[in-house]
Amino acid sequence: MNTLSTHLLIELNDCSSELLDDLNGIRTALIETTKIMGVTIVGETFHRFSPYGVTGVLAIAESHICVHTWPEHNYAAVDIFTCGNGGSAQKGAQYLISQFESKDPKIKVIERGLAPNSSVITH
Amino acid sequence: MNTLSTHLLIELNDCSSELLDDLNGIRTALIETTKIMGVTIVGETFHRFSPYGVTGVLAIAESHICVHTWPEHNYAAVDIFTCGNGGSAQKGAQYLISQFESKDPKIKVIERGLAPNSSVITH
Repeated sequence: MNTLSTHLLIELNDCSSELLDDLNGIRTALIETTKIMGVTIVGETFHRFSPYGVTGVLAIAESHICVHTWPEHNYAAVDIFTCGNGGSAQKGAQYLISQFESKDPKIKVIERGLAPNSSVITH
Repeated sequence: MNTLSTHLLIELNDCSSELLDDLNGIRTALIETTKIMGVTIVGETFHRFSPYGVTGVLAIAESHICVHTWPEHNYAAVDIFTCGNGGSAQKGAQYLISQFESKDPKIKVIERGLAPNSSVITH
């Protein structure tokens, strides 16, 4: 494969709104995701909005994991962007789907950093 | 439109490798991008890798702007993820294309957070 990275765009629909508004719970879930994926945290930023909603980003040696939540829509947008092993990114995605209790998750896979003459692979 | 957010996935090919390895320059460029877009920074994390490469993320009230660079490939992956005005995201993208001197940029537009029965709009 001639791509540098795999980017999972994860739509977490029909989640628990309570879980989506809990900054500490979200931070714990993202850190646990890095352990499941076997990746290394190099930085982080988390913010809770008023009256609701959380943004959290973990910068990892392999790129980033981020989440933006809209508790009022029972929705979270999650990105898992990693160099190398796409399989572990899928494990991370499945963990977060479970943690936020999403009943209607959707995952789009996009290859980033294409070398010349290579092709996009979408699963 | 029934989407919550617009996510620009920007492939910056054929960039200046020197610019892509300059953490302070990248941070300055991302902060300037937020001014051009009229968005509000709520958090940040930047990291320079050894022997080369930079990861930088600005969490914004409207979601996030991030960059991962591979100076050895003259390549950077940039994401601009914003609620609301997609037009200003395009202005931010054009600014970063110019700042990193990318001679072969590509932008993919993905609508995130679709409401039921709405459709994906790709520009």
